[in-house]
Amino acid sequence: METRDLTLLTDLYELTMMQGYFKRYKDEDEIAVFDVFYRENPYNGGYAIACGLEQVIDYIKNLKFTKEDIDYLDSLNTFDKEFLDYLANFKFSGDLYAIPEGTVVFPREPLIKVIAPISEAQLIEPAILNFINHQSLIATKTSRVVYAADGEGVMEFGLRRAQGADAGTFGARAAVIAGCIGTSNVLAGKFFGIPVMGTHAHSWIMSFPDEYTAFKNYAKLYPNNCLLLVDTYDTLNSGVPNAIRVFKEMKEEGIELKKYGIRLDSGDLAYLSKEARKMLDEAGFENAIISASNDLDENLITSLHIQGAKINSWGVGTHMITSKGWSSFGGVYKLAAVQDEEGIFVPKIKLSENTEKITNPGNKKIYRIYNKDDGYIRADLLSMNDESYIEDKDLELFDSVDTWKSAILKAGTFKLRELFVQVFDKGNCVYESPSVMEIRENCQKELATLRPETRRLINPTLVPVDLSNKLFRTKMGLFKEMSGKVL
Amino acid sequence: METRDLTLLTDLYELTMMQGYFKRYKDEDEIAVFDVFYRENPYNGGYAIACGLEQVIDYIKNLKFTKEDIDYLDSLNTFDKEFLDYLANFKFSGDLYAIPEGTVVFPREPLIKVIAPISEAQLIEPAILNFINHQSLIATKTSRVVYAADGEGVMEFGLRRAQGADAGTFGARAAVIAGCIGTSNVLAGKFFGIPVMGTHAHSWIMSFPDEYTAFKNYAKLYPNNCLLLVDTYDTLNSGVPNAIRVFKEMKEEGIELKKYGIRLDSGDLAYLSKEARKMLDEAGFENAIISASNDLDENLITSLHIQGAKINSWGVGTHMITSKGWSSFGGVYKLAAVQDEEGIFVPKIKLSENTEKITNPGNKKIYRIYNKDDGYIRADLLSMNDESYIEDKDLELFDSVDTWKSAILKAGTFKLRELFVQVFDKGNCVYESPSVMEIRENCQKELATLRPETRRLINPTLVPVDLSNKLFRTKMGLFKEMSGKVL
Repeated sequence: METRDLTLLTDLYELTMMQGYFKRYKDEDEIAVFDVFYRENPYNGGYAIACGLEQVIDYIKNLKFTKEDIDYLDSLNTFDKEFLDYLANFKFSGDLYAIPEGTVVFPREPLIKVIAPISEAQLIEPAILNFINHQSLIATKTSRVVYAADGEGVMEFGLRRAQGADAGTFGARAAVIAGCIGTSNVLAGKFFGIPVMGTHAHSWIMSFPDEYTAFKNYAKLYPNNCLLLVDTYDTLNSGVPNAIRVFKEMKEEGIELKKYGIRLDSGDLAYLSKEARKMLDEAGFENAIISASNDLDENLITSLHIQGAKINSWGVGTHMITSKGWSSFGGVYKLAAVQDEEGIFVPKIKLSENTEKITNPGNKKIYRIYNKDDGYIRADLLSMNDESYIEDKDLELFDSVDTWKSAILKAGTFKLRELFVQVFDKGNCVYESPSVMEIRENCQKELATLRPETRRLINPTLVPVDLSNKLFRTKMGLFKEMSGKVL
Repeated sequence: METRDLTLLTDLYELTMMQGYFKRYKDEDEIAVFDVFYRENPYNGGYAIACGLEQVIDYIKNLKFTKEDIDYLDSLNTFDKEFLDYLANFKFSGDLYAIPEGTVVFPREPLIKVIAPISEAQLIEPAILNFINHQSLIATKTSRVVYAADGEGVMEFGLRRAQGADAGTFGARAAVIAGCIGTSNVLAGKFFGIPVMGTHAHSWIMSFPDEYTAFKNYAKLYPNNCLLLVDTYDTLNSGVPNAIRVFKEMKEEGIELKKYGIRLDSGDLAYLSKEARKMLDEAGFENAIISASNDLDENLITSLHIQGAKINSWGVGTHMITSKGWSSFGGVYKLAAVQDEEGIFVPKIKLSENTEKITNPGNKKIYRIYNKDDGYIRADLLSMNDESYIEDKDLELFDSVDTWKSAILKAGTFKLRELFVQVFDKGNCVYESPSVMEIRENCQKELATLRPETRRLINPTLVPVDLSNKLFRTKMGLFKEMSGKVL
């Protein structure tokens, strides 16, 4: 993939704050800990899928203020020469931890943790959020669509409706990670080594004197992948009969159609698919695919299944690639701790009138707790980074809002896994992203660790994200300390 | 701006169709006319704003299949050598006409018309739609937000929540075109020469021992642009009093704060702004700005105005940059005509069970009709390209669905303007995009040609898009010809 200069993909206030830190500390800033987390599952679902880390890595690796960048910043009459000189030699020197891509995640747990001089950590905030927010959103939406399709293939077809070229291309990446079998977007195919698919458009039909000739030409060209679009003129009176005629002729001519069938792109998909199925079956084409597209999403696919629609392949565009109805993931980047002179991370908190918006302070890590018997996720546990939990000791969990809700997990009944992997160590990348198809495979396994009650589309059972006793006490302590004080 | 290789930003089926055309015609395809149009105004509003043409131009100018692209396509085992050789030498050779960026537009009229060999026209479909759909959507959404702000400045702050880097950067471009006074996105500032703005984040406050010290440091650093974020701990008991203390001290120290005030980012913006206004006024800071952010959109801004909120500057992020609630523009690209051997454009039509979805056939152009007295748009008229209308002859308009609805415009009472400009001529770009700030200025003038009843946010009066008599007859003729026929 080509390298793009995205160093200035940041908000101006990050640079004005950076200059403030620079003047205060020179280039010996305080080390700060920032958490990336989100607050609500898209579509009020039971989970989200972490996605976009590879782009975060590429971005940080390529951070560099070019002379052109510096000249531009200089032109704003906001930055002085000393600071611009510092930027010209800027290099990210911090640590970064992350939950790997394709992992199922839950609200309020950090997906990424940055430990870096505060000005460096500020600079990279908008780009990190942009990549993670975008791809986690599309991956989560896609996993819902794929869930509704219930094992039938879903193809990502949204490029033309996506919010810009990146939304089309990285959106296709996220969609394949979350379970799509491929994308129509050739650039995404080239960049990420993911399957590309597609057949033909209405204009192909319209450019021929008649529909039959258009179909016949297409079938001869692509006998291995011959899905004919049957709704240009009249689906049941023209499109399907012409498709059947072509399938028959190809058979008679001894040309085997490997993957073949029809695509419906308008009209009543439930009715048309059932009628088309009958016509195809009667003509002896029981294995012809019936593919559908046209403003599909998880709800429409579910409805078509309930109606007994005879569709076994889905092309999903607009609603998935823009996550229609829930168009932003809402991930935030919040200061959690600042290191003091002795190297101790002093927890920081941001208060809010809304209790749910109060951040979790401190340098933290995440344990995922699985049931030993069925392998499902029981809960996630946020703890301080210096805490340790082990599988052969009882583990107490409690709800951090309704603290009377608690449970003791008996040793031997659960498995623990720390979710963070280290990605950058003192500015050096120490993590290699798996391929997109590997992440996809991992994501399938991840989704299987959710109970069916958590995966369902409506009113799912939520997975608890609990705080360790130490973290809870720290939070309450800061909370009391802050709330009484006139600052 | 850096040049990106977006040649493969297309759907696979365009390339499979291209190979089909290539085998049928070699490189002497039929010339086809394709229209880009949309069907519904975003948010059921009265208009849209055309945006994204400059990116279409850059994309077409830079179309080139590199060796790497060809190797990738070869690896798909779908394309033969002769076709790949043709692609290696590919260059767009067609014409392109467009409505200039920043123009107000209406459903079913072509925003772009491509006249090119059919395989070339197909290749560029997804990218053209992607750019136009994205930026027209964000421009239209933004114009609604700016309308609600009623003359108070709106800043675009959405980078971190946008659907990818391009959505953040080109979204900022579209937002400024539609009326934002600037963006937080530094890369957009650099690329497009648009104003960048912003102050500081909660983390700035939290990294200091107390709020007062954080404010004081910021004010000393940036006396020319000193908006203090007052909601980190307690807006009215800590934030606003500390801000006032700093403003007073700066005054006493003889440092003039040029642009100064506070920013509210949480809580009840109506209540807090009114209380803060009182406190600031009582302290003698009547000209302090009160800026607000936090999930704003046109409806929330309207509601805050109705409540008498004392906010005079708006930072709008997530809802605008993702066009929350209407996340895709829905623009389509449809075949309208094919040139025959005599060079005549033969109109083509795509039928649909939904009358509104039936396309307008033929090689067309668009007249915009203004009232001579008040300058407002009266209607748009789609005609065949070879028709001419003039201002000193009566003009008959009629509704193409309810044809009894007709009107005769008296000569001398209206002005005519053809909306299309030529952008490419036989593959050569013959149009220079204005700067973004010039397009912005033009867009302001364009919006002023809409009646207030068309601009309003809810239930607007729609501008008619009528068909010329010749176009109407052509459409009806094709319609009858097609619908009776078994194809």
